[in-house]
Amino acid sequence: MALVLDPAAQDLLFREAHTANTFTEEPVTDEQVQAIYDLVKFGPTAFNQSPLRVTMLRTAESRARLLPHMAEGNRPKTSTAPLTAVLSYDLDFHERLPELFPHAPHIKDAFFSEEPVRESAASLNATLQAGYFLLGVRAAGLAAGPMTGFDPAGVDKEFFGDGRQHVLMVVNIGKPGPDAFAPRSPRLAYEDVVTVL
Amino acid sequence: MALVLDPAAQDLLFREAHTANTFTEEPVTDEQVQAIYDLVKFGPTAFNQSPLRVTMLRTAESRARLLPHMAEGNRPKTSTAPLTAVLSYDLDFHERLPELFPHAPHIKDAFFSEEPVRESAASLNATLQAGYFLLGVRAAGLAAGPMTGFDPAGVDKEFFGDGRQHVLMVVNIGKPGPDAFAPRSPRLAYEDVVTVL
Repeated sequence: MALVLDPAAQDLLFREAHTANTFTEEPVTDEQVQAIYDLVKFGPTAFNQSPLRVTMLRTAESRARLLPHMAEGNRPKTSTAPLTAVLSYDLDFHERLPELFPHAPHIKDAFFSEEPVRESAASLNATLQAGYFLLGVRAAGLAAGPMTGFDPAGVDKEFFGDGRQHVLMVVNIGKPGPDAFAPRSPRLAYEDVVTVL
Repeated sequence: MALVLDPAAQDLLFREAHTANTFTEEPVTDEQVQAIYDLVKFGPTAFNQSPLRVTMLRTAESRARLLPHMAEGNRPKTSTAPLTAVLSYDLDFHERLPELFPHAPHIKDAFFSEEPVRESAASLNATLQAGYFLLGVRAAGLAAGPMTGFDPAGVDKEFFGDGRQHVLMVVNIGKPGPDAFAPRSPRLAYEDVVTVL
């Protein structure tokens, strides 16, 4: 009653959704990927900086470049998912700020001329966008399998050789296969997370 | 057509939602806050580590503790929003892992005995949860006003004096007031964000 979001949407995005560990062979189409992006691109970032970049690995060749950098336990599912997304942030996101935040074009130089400042802003805001992206995958009726178990320096070198992008997360995407889900783990109680002052 | 999420839900969470910069006086109830948490708690984190903590500032006294640490441009809206949430991560999230990830209780010691490892995991995973939280606020029919313009060391000292929690973001929450929204800024084109290999 306290939520206005339709209960079916609550289930699809949160309550009934699970991280998938196996996938069917059913392909994820380019049309689905485009629809996910066209939805989640509206999620908020600071100054609309939009630092997230997504590298979709569709071919066997591109997948083979990723696998050696994944933790061993993550390799089987990453090699069999119909699509795998490498989520990264762009250290040079500020170059686009005059277009992205047109009512205050001075922000680019006033706030983001120093790379360490950009790195921390890009990391935070792209991770927020990664949260939107995972829910966007679910909005397309697909299961996401987000992973942080990989060698980030290896992934960066393999896919972002110029050093201007850094990987945050790797996400397998597809329809859940047999035994795709671990049992739902318990969540922290409201009182353990929310303090009211 | 490529999304299964109901179009009204797409609008509520993404397409029609905007960051609010002014708010009405209509209160945000504890019931709404509980409902938001009970929805977004199901969003995925690595090993279900769930490091996000939320400090809700409801009273004038608690708000007055925050305001001096906010960037000047963020103070008026932060002082008038019906509710302000300080989102932080708990460096000691791993203490709860045996409950939160019961099918692999060894994870706590195998992966998270070192604080720098915990810090980077907690920061990433709590930021993902912050993304879920912002959409959860919208799912309750409320507007969110996320901000990163504040002095994090000052906020940490004021609210988390023991050094075990670090602030990520401050979020004003309420019904949008007059002139609440800046014009929708443009988003990056699909081709600028998504690379298919």
